[in-house]
Amino acid sequence: MKGTVTILGCGSAKPTKTTSPSSQLVNLHDKYFLVDCGEGTLLTMQRLGVHTSRLYNIFISHLHGDHCFGLIGLLTTLGMLKRTQPMHIYAHKDLEKLLTPLLEYHANDRQYEIIFHAINPRKNEVIYEDNNVTVETIPLKHSVPTCGFLFKESQRVQKEDGSFERSVRKAYAYCSDTMYSEKILPIIEGVGTLYHESTFLESMGARSKEVQHSTAAQAATIAQKANAGKLILGHYSARVEDHNLFLQEAQPIFDNCVLAEENLTFEI
Amino acid sequence: MKGTVTILGCGSAKPTKTTSPSSQLVNLHDKYFLVDCGEGTLLTMQRLGVHTSRLYNIFISHLHGDHCFGLIGLLTTLGMLKRTQPMHIYAHKDLEKLLTPLLEYHANDRQYEIIFHAINPRKNEVIYEDNNVTVETIPLKHSVPTCGFLFKESQRVQKEDGSFERSVRKAYAYCSDTMYSEKILPIIEGVGTLYHESTFLESMGARSKEVQHSTAAQAATIAQKANAGKLILGHYSARVEDHNLFLQEAQPIFDNCVLAEENLTFEI
Repeated sequence: MKGTVTILGCGSAKPTKTTSPSSQLVNLHDKYFLVDCGEGTLLTMQRLGVHTSRLYNIFISHLHGDHCFGLIGLLTTLGMLKRTQPMHIYAHKDLEKLLTPLLEYHANDRQYEIIFHAINPRKNEVIYEDNNVTVETIPLKHSVPTCGFLFKESQRVQKEDGSFERSVRKAYAYCSDTMYSEKILPIIEGVGTLYHESTFLESMGARSKEVQHSTAAQAATIAQKANAGKLILGHYSARVEDHNLFLQEAQPIFDNCVLAEENLTFEI
Repeated sequence: MKGTVTILGCGSAKPTKTTSPSSQLVNLHDKYFLVDCGEGTLLTMQRLGVHTSRLYNIFISHLHGDHCFGLIGLLTTLGMLKRTQPMHIYAHKDLEKLLTPLLEYHANDRQYEIIFHAINPRKNEVIYEDNNVTVETIPLKHSVPTCGFLFKESQRVQKEDGSFERSVRKAYAYCSDTMYSEKILPIIEGVGTLYHESTFLESMGARSKEVQHSTAAQAATIAQKANAGKLILGHYSARVEDHNLFLQEAQPIFDNCVLAEENLTFEI
């Protein structure tokens, strides 16, 4: 069973005319998973006609504002929409401390529960599991504690002798924000689709190290070394207007490479 | 000297495919004033090419999320853009309590000062004054403490005898969110342009009272009784897809009436 990822935002911290901050909607085994929730995430979901009632799990990579400032608007609005089903949020422990006073002030009359799951971004471990989908953290190297997320899909398949077994595939890995780090290779080895941030170009390399981000060439190198099936680039610096420059830098290293652009949906 | 108001968002609490939450940029005597700051305000300003470095004063009508959830993203980003000039925020006192922990976490390294001015939404008083522009609060009737803002413009004009005097005109009044309230009439009497919320249509009247909003007919009645020059309708309920229905309801009562739509700029 194929899944999809829809890009809701793929800019970096400074919004531009064409990019909103980070957010993606992963659809795997007919379940929605929101990955990061920058400002404007709910508005973009509304514009795409996403049924937020089908969303139960939100994963936040780290607490820089461009990855989480859309949460309070989303959670408050779900309350107004009379949601009753719980919402699970997987994030660094500080998120609960930051959001709780806001939820008490703005969404105290909501009829649904918000369950925070504190994750340890330094460890590779399973943080979500159901019959068909598993989500693991991927420790990343950034200026604050950050992890990516690996979505594994398992399904029951029939063997030649008629018996059944479960086949597991690494469907999708989200790696943002991060410097170049080969430590993630064993975790994402063989992943079907890899989203790896490419904030900068090689020509801006010094800046890239300073703020602990990657270049397009580095993203492509990770994809190549991890034997990924496909690479999606994103989290573009506001300084690079022509996103094709990222593609031109990455493709000689890893050919099956595409640019994230808002509202695009990719098969995973 | 003419001014303008640019509509950055004119929806109500539930975002739709065509509307973002409330925000407006008033440009008077070549100064920017931001009125309300719903989620997505910064993104819309970026897309319109607004120079945020020219913004020094933000006025927040009340603390429902659709009027203030865009503040943290805006203020954090201004820090990243190396702003050094102070920013003044005029709002209910609770805003400072809510925003301070977020600013400490997300924007602690900013190089500019944020100065909160606690306003009393129950009183009509001057809260901002410079050589040419005065801003007064307009007490409104809503489910939480709320006030509108009256922008007065004064300029030096030459009289027939050659001497000079200051002429004051009520340029613009922002009245959102509010039930129908004739108490505001003396304050906004003779205003050049009135923005008055019209969340609902008369056919949805019961709902309008329950949640303390106005209908388009009520907005038009206020404009007519206040002898306003022009009326801008906005803060549309997500339940009304065709905004022309608001216009059709308002115009028989007050003819010089237009619909707020995002990215539109009106002279005031």
